[in-house]
Amino acid sequence: MPQSSVRIADLTWYDFAARVKDDPIVFLPTGSVEQHGPHLPLFTDVILPVAVAEAVAAKLGGLVAPPVTYGYKSQPKSGGGNHFPGTLSLDASVFISLVRNIINELARHGVRKVVLFDGHMENQWFLVEAADLALRDQRAEGVHDLKIVKLGYWEFITKATEAALFPEGMPSWELEHAAVMETSVMLHLRPDLVRVDKIPDHPAASFPPYDVYPFDTTPIPPDGVLSSAKPASAEKGAIVIEQVVPDIAASLAKVFGKPTEA
Amino acid sequence: MPQSSVRIADLTWYDFAARVKDDPIVFLPTGSVEQHGPHLPLFTDVILPVAVAEAVAAKLGGLVAPPVTYGYKSQPKSGGGNHFPGTLSLDASVFISLVRNIINELARHGVRKVVLFDGHMENQWFLVEAADLALRDQRAEGVHDLKIVKLGYWEFITKATEAALFPEGMPSWELEHAAVMETSVMLHLRPDLVRVDKIPDHPAASFPPYDVYPFDTTPIPPDGVLSSAKPASAEKGAIVIEQVVPDIAASLAKVFGKPTEA
Amino acid sequence: MPQSSVRIADLTWYDFAARVKDDPIVFLPTGSVEQHGPHLPLFTDVILPVAVAEAVAAKLGGLVAPPVTYGYKSQPKSGGGNHFPGTLSLDASVFISLVRNIINELARHGVRKVVLFDGHMENQWFLVEAADLALRDQRAEGVHDLKIVKLGYWEFITKATEAALFPEGMPSWELEHAAVMETSVMLHLRPDLVRVDKIPDHPAASFPPYDVYPFDTTPIPPDGVLSSAKPASAEKGAIVIEQVVPDIAASLAKVFGKPTEA
Amino acid sequence: MPQSSVRIADLTWYDFAARVKDDPIVFLPTGSVEQHGPHLPLFTDVILPVAVAEAVAAKLGGLVAPPVTYGYKSQPKSGGGNHFPGTLSLDASVFISLVRNIINELARHGVRKVVLFDGHMENQWFLVEAADLALRDQRAEGVHDLKIVKLGYWEFITKATEAALFPEGMPSWELEHAAVMETSVMLHLRPDLVRVDKIPDHPAASFPPYDVYPFDTTPIPPDGVLSSAKPASAEKGAIVIEQVVPDIAASLAKVFGKPTEA
Amino acid sequence: MPQSSVRIADLTWYDFAARVKDDPIVFLPTGSVEQHGPHLPLFTDVILPVAVAEAVAAKLGGLVAPPVTYGYKSQPKSGGGNHFPGTLSLDASVFISLVRNIINELARHGVRKVVLFDGHMENQWFLVEAADLALRDQRAEGVHDLKIVKLGYWEFITKATEAALFPEGMPSWELEHAAVMETSVMLHLRPDLVRVDKIPDHPAASFPPYDVYPFDTTPIPPDGVLSSAKPASAEKGAIVIEQVVPDIAASLAKVFGKPTEA
Amino acid sequence: MPQSSVRIADLTWYDFAARVKDDPIVFLPTGSVEQHGPHLPLFTDVILPVAVAEAVAAKLGGLVAPPVTYGYKSQPKSGGGNHFPGTLSLDASVFISLVRNIINELARHGVRKVVLFDGHMENQWFLVEAADLALRDQRAEGVHDLKIVKLGYWEFITKATEAALFPEGMPSWELEHAAVMETSVMLHLRPDLVRVDKIPDHPAASFPPYDVYPFDTTPIPPDGVLSSAKPASAEKGAIVIEQVVPDIAASLAKVFGKPTEA
Repeated sequence: MPQSSVRIADLTWYDFAARVKDDPIVFLPTGSVEQHGPHLPLFTDVILPVAVAEAVAAKLGGLVAPPVTYGYKSQPKSGGGNHFPGTLSLDASVFISLVRNIINELARHGVRKVVLFDGHMENQWFLVEAADLALRDQRAEGVHDLKIVKLGYWEFITKATEAALFPEGMPSWELEHAAVMETSVMLHLRPDLVRVDKIPDHPAASFPPYDVYPFDTTPIPPDGVLSSAKPASAEKGAIVIEQVVPDIAASLAKVFGKPTEA
Repeated sequence: MPQSSVRIADLTWYDFAARVKDDPIVFLPTGSVEQHGPHLPLFTDVILPVAVAEAVAAKLGGLVAPPVTYGYKSQPKSGGGNHFPGTLSLDASVFISLVRNIINELARHGVRKVVLFDGHMENQWFLVEAADLALRDQRAEGVHDLKIVKLGYWEFITKATEAALFPEGMPSWELEHAAVMETSVMLHLRPDLVRVDKIPDHPAASFPPYDVYPFDTTPIPPDGVLSSAKPASAEKGAIVIEQVVPDIAASLAKVFGKPTEA
Repeated sequence: MPQSSVRIADLTWYDFAARVKDDPIVFLPTGSVEQHGPHLPLFTDVILPVAVAEAVAAKLGGLVAPPVTYGYKSQPKSGGGNHFPGTLSLDASVFISLVRNIINELARHGVRKVVLFDGHMENQWFLVEAADLALRDQRAEGVHDLKIVKLGYWEFITKATEAALFPEGMPSWELEHAAVMETSVMLHLRPDLVRVDKIPDHPAASFPPYDVYPFDTTPIPPDGVLSSAKPASAEKGAIVIEQVVPDIAASLAKVFGKPTEA
Repeated sequence: MPQSSVRIADLTWYDFAARVKDDPIVFLPTGSVEQHGPHLPLFTDVILPVAVAEAVAAKLGGLVAPPVTYGYKSQPKSGGGNHFPGTLSLDASVFISLVRNIINELARHGVRKVVLFDGHMENQWFLVEAADLALRDQRAEGVHDLKIVKLGYWEFITKATEAALFPEGMPSWELEHAAVMETSVMLHLRPDLVRVDKIPDHPAASFPPYDVYPFDTTPIPPDGVLSSAKPASAEKGAIVIEQVVPDIAASLAKVFGKPTEA
Repeated sequence: MPQSSVRIADLTWYDFAARVKDDPIVFLPTGSVEQHGPHLPLFTDVILPVAVAEAVAAKLGGLVAPPVTYGYKSQPKSGGGNHFPGTLSLDASVFISLVRNIINELARHGVRKVVLFDGHMENQWFLVEAADLALRDQRAEGVHDLKIVKLGYWEFITKATEAALFPEGMPSWELEHAAVMETSVMLHLRPDLVRVDKIPDHPAASFPPYDVYPFDTTPIPPDGVLSSAKPASAEKGAIVIEQVVPDIAASLAKVFGKPTEA
Repeated sequence: MPQSSVRIADLTWYDFAARVKDDPIVFLPTGSVEQHGPHLPLFTDVILPVAVAEAVAAKLGGLVAPPVTYGYKSQPKSGGGNHFPGTLSLDASVFISLVRNIINELARHGVRKVVLFDGHMENQWFLVEAADLALRDQRAEGVHDLKIVKLGYWEFITKATEAALFPEGMPSWELEHAAVMETSVMLHLRPDLVRVDKIPDHPAASFPPYDVYPFDTTPIPPDGVLSSAKPASAEKGAIVIEQVVPDIAASLAKVFGKPTEA
């Protein structure tokens, strides 16, 4: 019965029309096609926010729009860098206008509650701009009650979960690219796509307090993993998911004045 | 073993780098989030070209990039019209720059053979522009050997397959929106997403030889289906797939000077 | 007495102001500077829609704005291709914004009935976008009663006229580039610009069901004419004009609720 | 024999290809659809530069491209202002990109000598930008020998001609909008389009040394004519044409190293 | 006490909020980083309008926004040309959108009286466009009472001041680049930045009535100064300032219905 | 003697040309016009990076370009939010294209070492894009040796300086908006612009792990200061400056292969 799906992709237009009548929260996951080391697939930053967004949406009677799968350019300090093979990134203007356009389209059909649900750190500031411009566009269309939330699911990880992930202390969230957290959640959600034999174990990268363009590749680990992924496990991944999903749902329920369903 | 996947999304960057060394054909499916009547999901125009592209890529040792899932604005005569709930479309400038950017990113990593593999008729002319502009961009980068093919998979349906689909004569390809062909292929590939009980059966739409903006909705069937889908069947869908996949593969093998694998 | 002219170009601003008070239909012909074989001038796609639009406008008390003379890039299957000398084409973004801007200017002065009157097949989808964006612009200006019709005059050719043009059966409208229809109408309207001694006669072009960029010139006839123009005659041109002008006028009279004058 | 025409519009592509082999000067007239008082048509700023450009081109073996007929927004001090009915103007971005695109297209076909031949004062600075950006575009295409001249034909009027036009002294070139010079040349070239009975005679407008937006219409003469046109005559128009045509031709012959033919 | 400053830069947001309540005139100086010969600094076109605007603002209880310091491309006839070292200029689209954006931001905070206060002749037409587009943007935001004045301070120099500057007759305002007027005012306002020993003295440049791109540098004086600056003096500079400041203030007081304070 | 100035603004073009011959590092400070509480001026984010950049440039024989004074939109968590009066911000597209354009202009004159020297946290990601696009532009111009560094001067504050600033422990760098560090450095550099009597002292703001658009102003302190500025002092400001200036100079000397002068 696709009509109960949280995925807009699965619905017919009759389903969509019926669901939008209830003023649902609509989630737009945003990710990237980005290197994630020798052990994780290029779609890691899409798979994770889509999975989390769908779980959160299910709790809130929400809908999940087809994700924005190409993201902003990977940077050395947070993603290894755009030069790694397979990293397919968008110019800021393209990413911003794509997200802005999708928000406007949702609003055109009556959606008033949108969550930009990010899985790729480099997207964050461009999502800010897309939200601001879409609100401007909607004002010109006479729509004044659109509300947009922007979040990265990892920002909801509590200190307790952090301790479970890193019993010996956490390096830094920025260096968590393709490392313990992402690998653990992938092992939990999509073990078929993790090359367990290739999980890297090397010291965390160390960067100077400035950035060089074209990239200075000296401080970037050759495998693109910014800190060791060795301590990752499916159990840790489950801990993350079981904590962040209800916490994000609770936050959004409050922001949007919605009951949570589960 | 994801490394044998045709999907770029499933690969690690090491896989991608290894595969690109062989100068593969890379497919970029382009679709839409568009009403497809009471019986087909909004993602029909994504599901179909992705499935066909993956099958063709498998025969050619190619790769399939994550699809462009939002397409150009649905028009009454070919898709029912952009006003139907759930139809989420892009402005021409956004769609063109998105496709152009992805082509440029593939080229940056060494890809020289790209297929814009369309599943949504309204995208066609904007794909032309994206291809032209990407070639210009690449010239400025000193790349002169990029070759791009644009196609709609339905254009490869032979007269014989047409006769199998429409034993009593075909109405028109433009009116085939959410009708016999698309419904049949969906029944073949994703029967879980087809509402068999809602397959419509009404006369084909009839349009005047001009277009009115804002849309004149008078000639548009209220369910958004442009001609009867009743004669659809999974068997007919199988016939389409079994014919077009090898035919497209053969054409592309010739265009790009590649052997077909199967 | 220029004030009775259908051409905006010929009017003074007093004339224009007086005419716009009657809420006239304003025609914007759109063409191209495009090769039309060895026998027709580069302006064929401007000359024809301007002539037809002026004749239609005369019947409806309408006005004809100065034409958009540069059009979208010529394609092999419909126009021979952009590489032919003398073909001067616009990027999609330029063409769209030009047409959008002109519509907005007409609306600024009070025009509410606009016809995008096309003479170049490649323009069609970009006219769709221009119309959609101009309607959006006008909504932001508080204008909600602008109505835009888009048409290609050749779409109004009836089966009867088709039979007169092609007594032995018609090849395809797409292959009619610089062929029987266009040559006939040029012989009827502007014989001074037709090189009768150079009218080509060769088999129709045959194209594969895909497009290659940069163009594969193999299937393109070297003279740029997509099917034989030999059977063209001024008489046939007269038949076309005498049929399409009243028919287009009748259609527009109905769409816009206007009486026809002749 | 259209092949001897200076108008690109009249040529076949074979003619164009043959002519471009001689490295001709190609003229792009740029005008506007702009109010010119109660006596001159809205197309005055197109008719005049086209006529002068064609005469100059004839002397230099040059070609004239189809004119850019919509221009930049009319300003009170030089054109009366954009608010006058019938004045249809382009945004700067549209005008610039249109001219830039046409220059690039000419260059694509091998043209290396371009004259932006202006008939509308408000276009001047945007022509500068179009030329600069087209040169940048051409550098990216590897073209380094494109040369562009920008001129307004009125800038070539000598003191002697000025004295003939204004025996009692000239007010100012900026206030010459729809006044003695333009009216005289129209009377010489296109008397059929001049309403002789409506030629205005009132004192010249007087403007403060600043501009107000939205326009302050107080200092603008209600008929849009900035100074008296009464002294205009066809004879004066002939004097202008007979002086500027050879002078412009001589200048361009020198700039481009071309012989003049007459 | 910064709160009494005319400079927005010096205010706290509390100061700004308090000042805007009085509906002040807000000045946006626009200049350039442009060669000004061997004796004047690259910032001459910023220093001068900022100083004049601050003096005028002080008389009107106005505020001065941080200046737009990069301007449109220097042209041979008015600024020597963009090729001179140190001339850092903006593309038209960047300059226009920057000014437009700042106007919109002022309007967002309640400002309704804006003066674009120019110090660089090449900016003028692009300021026109920025003003027009900002008014359009504000209409879409529902703001209909924004008024914008555009001026170049030099346009207010009276015949009497002109006579004081050029006792022997004035060459032309366009050739006044880095010459008597600008040098005099710099000597008056910022003598520390004038290299008195390098003040040039050579005949005025003479240009043909057309422009060539890329620039024909033949007629451009090698030092970038368009006419002699020799007669410059601090006294003449004081005369200019003492005349134009009250005159501009008086004009603006009238335009905006404001009392002058001094 | 302006020729020894680090400020490009103060140089003549002869000075600039001479200095660029030595392949200097050119600094482009980027700031904002942004609320900084009741005690600091709107120009704080311009004053600080300009001062630091000039000090660093002096040590490296570098030059400082006129700063980009308008920045990206202030956000609640890092700057209080764009809604505060006096905060004048740019759209992402405008900010990016402005910085990109200035970099391109520097490169046009031969500069190959550029430092984007940021004083406003919200600018950071848009500087990344500007750098990336300018490098692309330069490749199209045939320039392949341009190197760009992007930095925020605060990122160079060492743990030791941090301890001096916050003897009782630091809250968070993001909450340092208009707080101890910025106030201290302003007290050190521009005490005339600090309202000492208004330095706020209230608990640090606390934000949820998501962002709401339009802003949820609940968690934002009404004065716009994100944590207490009370402990600020000119001495602390001096400590910051004396540490970061040589450290940044040393880093850049290494990156660009330049000796430090002091």
